[in-house]
Amino acid sequence: MIERSIGKKIWAFAAGHIPLHSKGKEPAFTSHDKIAVLNIGDKEAKISIKIFNGDCEPVDFKLLTVASRRIRKIRFNDLINPLPIPLDKPFGFLIISDVEVLIQFSRADTSQRALTGFCVTPLSR
Amino acid sequence: MIERSIGKKIWAFAAGHIPLHSKGKEPAFTSHDKIAVLNIGDKEAKISIKIFNGDCEPVDFKLLTVASRRIRKIRFNDLINPLPIPLDKPFGFLIISDVEVLIQFSRADTSQRALTGFCVTPLSR
Amino acid sequence: MIERSIGKKIWAFAAGHIPLHSKGKEPAFTSHDKIAVLNIGDKEAKISIKIFNGDCEPVDFKLLTVASRRIRKIRFNDLINPLPIPLDKPFGFLIISDVEVLIQFSRADTSQRALTGFCVTPLSR
Amino acid sequence: MIERSIGKKIWAFAAGHIPLHSKGKEPAFTSHDKIAVLNIGDKEAKISIKIFNGDCEPVDFKLLTVASRRIRKIRFNDLINPLPIPLDKPFGFLIISDVEVLIQFSRADTSQRALTGFCVTPLSR
Repeated sequence: MIERSIGKKIWAFAAGHIPLHSKGKEPAFTSHDKIAVLNIGDKEAKISIKIFNGDCEPVDFKLLTVASRRIRKIRFNDLINPLPIPLDKPFGFLIISDVEVLIQFSRADTSQRALTGFCVTPLSR
Repeated sequence: MIERSIGKKIWAFAAGHIPLHSKGKEPAFTSHDKIAVLNIGDKEAKISIKIFNGDCEPVDFKLLTVASRRIRKIRFNDLINPLPIPLDKPFGFLIISDVEVLIQFSRADTSQRALTGFCVTPLSR
Repeated sequence: MIERSIGKKIWAFAAGHIPLHSKGKEPAFTSHDKIAVLNIGDKEAKISIKIFNGDCEPVDFKLLTVASRRIRKIRFNDLINPLPIPLDKPFGFLIISDVEVLIQFSRADTSQRALTGFCVTPLSR
Repeated sequence: MIERSIGKKIWAFAAGHIPLHSKGKEPAFTSHDKIAVLNIGDKEAKISIKIFNGDCEPVDFKLLTVASRRIRKIRFNDLINPLPIPLDKPFGFLIISDVEVLIQFSRADTSQRALTGFCVTPLSR
């Protein structure tokens, strides 16, 4: 019981950025920003993602799902519907789920010197 | 007194991943995901860990303990009962303690270019 | 509606530091500390930044704006009014916005070995 | 006014670790764990630090101060009273301030491959 109420329905992040270049074997070392979504509940989660840009209006992406009691990683590189996220430009995003989930954000930038980091999400409610 | 009430009993993380390859001296430079558990209270903490996967049901691991007023680091690579966590696959986890503890998560990926990070935990209550 | 109330008006950070040296192509690999500001609301955000130092009084910088439904990245290297932030010295900062925003902090230090990290903000209200 | 009430009096961290080896120029590239303390208030902050270990009782360090409206970085390598923190061993810590402060934790490990990270503090109240 107690486990079901963990998580949030709304998550937001400000510091998105997909680097232009990558080095190393594909796809593990492709530069990317990604989120990991953990759904510990008994119902499938329906996830909507809205991308905010520096110089144009926000874009709403096609709904994604995360099965009950499962983890799913989503690379922003793979979000191409309605259109791909431009490389090498800052973006922010807002994620809304119909059930409570846990989301963590991480980045790997292999373009030159492994400017890399891993982090967990801060902004939710 | 005030110190005893710090911490949480439930912790959750979404972005677990144990890399397939390592470089450097063992075991310090083995690629790993790990958690550090700080128990500042007067009672031993009993910790249960549930691992969530991308493609199968969650797995409950054997109970671990952290002594009173002690720190303990736990590598996910070392969790092998009932079975090891698959390498190179995403996982999430839920940690439940019988007393309040502090937990932080960190990763070292030495497989190619030190895609590495250190972070502290966000999700708790 | 629900989206408009996400975020905070006050943000603070303790671990600012602009490295003295950089390697790699300018400006992507210039060592820097930066913040990403996400304004998901319908009103332009007016942002004031106060820098705290180790050895002298705090400095208030010129007001910045972030347009409605936009992301903006701000490098501390670029804050030069009333004066640049000294290189290689610790600083902290306080950011106050007239509307609710999301702020994340990140660092890239390319001076020697890519002592680098990416992180999200913790301190807000 | 609003600025004075930002921060917490109690901070705790679980994942402390000072690497055994360093590479690069001293002291900037000495491997270290450190905290940055931001005191935005009008009163000097008196900070007590208690270190928790894996295999022995906690140790209380000599009181430190952070001046009003100032930032101060503290390397755990420099904590030597009553005794230095052992290298290459896990430790946790509890920090108690008499006034509200902001604390962030960061690590630089230059011992082999720049297993490095930067992060902000999670656990407070």
